[in-house]
This record gives sequence, structure tokens and C-alpha cells, in this order.
Amino acid sequence: MSAEFDLIARYFTRPAKRAVLGVGDDCALIGLPEGRELAISTDTLVCGTHFFPDADPHALGCKALAVNLSDLAAMGALPRYATLALTLPSIDAGWLDAFARGLFEFAAAYDVELIGGDTTRGPLSFTLTVFGEVASGKALRRDAARAGDDVWLSGRIGGAALALAVAQGDASVSSDAAGSAALRLHRPQPRVALGLRISGIAHAAIDVSDGLLADLGHIGERSRLDAEIDWPRVPVDAALDGTAEALRRRCALTGGDDYELCFTASLAERARIEALNGIVDGVAITRIGRMVMASGPGGAVRVLDAAGRPVECGRRGYDHFTPTRESGRTCG
Amino acid sequence: MSAEFDLIARYFTRPAKRAVLGVGDDCALIGLPEGRELAISTDTLVCGTHFFPDADPHALGCKALAVNLSDLAAMGALPRYATLALTLPSIDAGWLDAFARGLFEFAAAYDVELIGGDTTRGPLSFTLTVFGEVASGKALRRDAARAGDDVWLSGRIGGAALALAVAQGDASVSSDAAGSAALRLHRPQPRVALGLRISGIAHAAIDVSDGLLADLGHIGERSRLDAEIDWPRVPVDAALDGTAEALRRRCALTGGDDYELCFTASLAERARIEALNGIVDGVAITRIGRMVMASGPGGAVRVLDAAGRPVECGRRGYDHFTPTRESGRTCG
Repeated sequence: MSAEFDLIARYFTRPAKRAVLGVGDDCALIGLPEGRELAISTDTLVCGTHFFPDADPHALGCKALAVNLSDLAAMGALPRYATLALTLPSIDAGWLDAFARGLFEFAAAYDVELIGGDTTRGPLSFTLTVFGEVASGKALRRDAARAGDDVWLSGRIGGAALALAVAQGDASVSSDAAGSAALRLHRPQPRVALGLRISGIAHAAIDVSDGLLADLGHIGERSRLDAEIDWPRVPVDAALDGTAEALRRRCALTGGDDYELCFTASLAERARIEALNGIVDGVAITRIGRMVMASGPGGAVRVLDAAGRPVECGRRGYDHFTPTRESGRTCG
Repeated sequence: MSAEFDLIARYFTRPAKRAVLGVGDDCALIGLPEGRELAISTDTLVCGTHFFPDADPHALGCKALAVNLSDLAAMGALPRYATLALTLPSIDAGWLDAFARGLFEFAAAYDVELIGGDTTRGPLSFTLTVFGEVASGKALRRDAARAGDDVWLSGRIGGAALALAVAQGDASVSSDAAGSAALRLHRPQPRVALGLRISGIAHAAIDVSDGLLADLGHIGERSRLDAEIDWPRVPVDAALDGTAEALRRRCALTGGDDYELCFTASLAERARIEALNGIVDGVAITRIGRMVMASGPGGAVRVLDAAGRPVECGRRGYDHFTPTRESGRTCG
């Protein structure tokens, strides 16, 4: 048995329970109950772009799955399966063991089966593909927002962007604040239960991975609407308390990686959604704005102050191809 | 719209026809007809490991999909959908355009819809995940071979390994032979129609990607059987005609990347399978050996000469983590 196959067998093979056939054949095989659709999402994390070479492998294993489950949450889908394509510069048993433990612990917590994948040699990166089930026709799509819808946000945002700013020396906060912000960046919690709960109530949903303005803009683009956000209503991460207004805005509005859910719903559902506030996994739900008729092709997002005047926000969201400060460390 | 999203929209968005929802949301959505299972396979191609930095991007787009469809073929599954996770050092419009053309031309030829993906910044690599349908319980699994089964092989093998040996200066053949071998390496043809045709006839199947001995060994391991190959029966690529016996054996038995199907079937099916020879896509089908009771845990493959004596074959198959000659070129 080659080193590659031995590696896969050792770290990533667990018996399939729900799947018809799991790891170890040319393909995995799964079924789908009648009346259900399969929601599929794929995300790549690359060393040097999405994480530093010295990142804790256990946390990475968790995060790799978390950011993908967040996409299922944003569709209101129930997580079921995942595949992992792992590219490694060499076989580091300690790293692999910790990464696999993180991945499988997180998978167990969300009842997700790893059913297949690929292991190749090259610069460190991994691509996870996740599979979830949703009742046919009931998925929360980006193109389903309606003019007049309220815009809602789960949790508090800006923490992950603050942690990145602190790590890059662009911001300075207390060690307590830095610690809680770092947790947001390195241990994102996908809002799976909330996504399932608002299915059938919300119209459109997205997870905030690229930044609130960018992601709400995606709903607007696909629904051919614009959006307005009331800045004083935006639930900013407590780690940003007492920091400069410009940093708060930048982190909360254009920083990504918080993996909260942003969704729209009819005004008629306002009381029903407010009743969920703090109930599902203890997560706050805040009404932060509204969808409006588009002045152009759709996708514009205006941020307003308490008096309804525009707030300046700068760059709209994260873009992997906009040059950013390089870490200087290497990823093998 | 960020450069990343613009990029995805420009090169990789085509309207979904079969899928419920294609590129552009948090997830793609697909249905599955009753009585069918979904076969899923994922493969990563990394620059410097699987292809050279100066590889023709159009051919790469084809090959990326071909090697994945080959896994569906090996299950007897009908190709339906694909997702693409693409990691690029920078946006090179010419490269992307050619890669996307290759991918979509190949996808159209096999009626595959690209339904989602991810685009990130980093060293050049791509992970394709493909989805196919197969009648429930009818997939060709590696663990379904039976003692006494014939072992069959489609097409001719060794060409891809010869092309690699020529490129690395380890072998020298006529320019005609080198050209036809290079086609085998760079333009693999997944045996999708054959996989569908032998479904219900064959017991176990695998595609020859790691080398015939290694891949037949995988069937043996999963089926707890050993295998015997009659070396004189093995259909060696015509590009190897007249070359040294050691090179022929190495390329045909331990070289990978030919993407032919190796399958096992009951002796009772021999006439039915021979009748398919040259019929499905014009591909030859050759009986090359048999599955036998395992002397150990299973997975041993013995190669025999015309007199039934063991043939020496050396290293069993390709292993991404066995150090090989580095190209010296860089992959960004």
C-alpha cells in the first residue's frame, strides 16, 4: 500500500453510517429522500491566503468544515456529508493527526459524515465540499429578497476582522478583547440551527464571509434590489467597544469571516423573528435595515446614520485578488 | 463587484439547466430521481506535482474534468454535475479563458453542468468534484470482485507513463510514438460509455490512474482477494512497440494516468463482454487475468509469463509522496 493510501486510510477513513458507500472507492455513493434537494458548497483554504503556516492544525480542521457548513446554514439546509481534498507539502503525522481530530470533532458535532476525498502533494491547502438536505423548493436563495423586506443579522460582527487587524499590527485592543476577537476568527460557529429555523420564514439569506456590505450586496444583485443599513442598529462585536469609529465601521461593515447569517423577511414576519432572538443556540437576531427598489441594476448598499444621512465606509469587502500585506512566512 | 466575483461570473457562470440552482448562491441545489444514487468523486491537480507550469491551459481544463469523469465511469455512473475550486497566483485572462474553454467543451461533450465552486488566491491548483447518477444498488464497487472472476482491461496502457518518461529524458522513442503517447498523458478519455454498458455485467471496477498493479491491487484489498495477470495478454500501448522489455513492463504495469477501466466479471459473462470488444466508443476490451483466493489479507497481484512463471515488475504504482525528480520550474 502506498504512503498516500496509507495516509488516507489512517487519518480520514471512518465507517459510513448514512452514506451508501464512504471513503475507499472511486466514488462515494449517497441517497436522497423523496421531496428533498441536495445543497452543495465548496470552499478552499490556502496557506498564506486564508491562514498562516503556523496556524493550529486542530483549529484549522474545525474552521475548514465550519466555513462550509456556514454556506449550508445560509440555504437553510441540514448538513449530511463532506469530502476533503487535501494538498500537503509532506507527511507530518503530528499536523495531520491534529487536523483530522479537529475536522472529525466538528463533523461529529454537526452529524456530518466524511465520505471521500483526495490527498496530493503540493503547497498546503484544502478544499472541502459539503452536502446538505433541504425540502424541495424551500432553500433560502440569494435571489428571493423582496422590496420592503426587513434585513436581519445574527450575532455580532466585526470580531474576526479586528483579530486580523490586531495580528497585522493595524489595531491595538486589550488582551481580553484581542482574545475574544481571535476566537471569532479562528473558531467560527456556523449558524446551522438558525438557518433551519428561519427556513420558511425568511425570503433570502447569505452568510457574512466577505463582509456585511459585500454579502448583502450579493443578495441585492441577485434579487435586483438595493439595501439600506441603519448603522446604529448594527450589532458590533463587543471586542470593538471603545475603539475608533473608523475601525468599528471597517471591521463591522467591510471585514469578513464572522460567518453570521444575514437574511431578509417580510414585515409580516417581524414579530415571529423577534421571538427567535437569543433562542436558537442563544444567538441574537437584530433587524438592521431594509431592501429597497434598485436605483440601478441592484446590489447597492447604503449605510445610514441615526438621522438617515449616508455613512462613509470605504472598501466594500474582502477580495482575494486585491494585493494585501504578505506574511513573509512560507507555506512549503 | 470584487475582482474575484467578476472573475467567477465571467469565466465560470453558465445557466443551469438540469440543476435546481447553479453558480452564484451559497450552495448549488440538485435533485435526484427516485431509485437513483448519487456518485461523488473529487480530484486535485497541483502545478508541479500533476502538471508543469507551462502546460497548455485548454488541455488542463479538459484533463481536470476527464480524470474525475473517469472515477464516475469506474462506478458505472452517468455524469451530471461538477464543481470547481480554482486556486490562482494571479488573474491571467488568457490562461483562464483557455482553461474555461477546455473545461466547458469537455463538460458539454459529457453533458455535465458546472454548478458551483470557489476561486482563491494561492499556488496554482484545482479541485474538481463530479456528481453522477447510478441505479440504486447497481454501482460497480471495488469490494464486489469474486474469486474466479476474469479480470478485463479497456484500451491499451502504458502510453501516459511513456510520455512522462520521454518528457523526463528517461526514454527515447520515435517522434510519432512520442506524440501519440503524449496524447494519452494530456488528453485522457474517460470510459464513461463503457462504465455504463458493463454496469449489471461486471462485479468490480476501477480506473487505472495509479498503475495497473496498484489499481487492481485496490480491488483485491477491498474484495479480500489476490489477482493474477497474464503479462503476454496485457494490451500495451503501440507507442511502446520495439522498446526494451523493462520499459514496457514499467510503463504498462506500474505507470499511471491511462484512465482505462479495469474490471472483474464472472466467467459466465465472458462471451457477453467479448461481444462488446471494439463496440463501445470503439474501445478494445481484453481479458488479462483472474481474481484468486487471497494468500494473505488480499491485494497481492502476481504477474505471470506465458509459462505461468512470475515476472519481475519493480515498484508497484505511483505515489504522490514518493520523492520524484523536481521540474525546477516554479508554479507561482
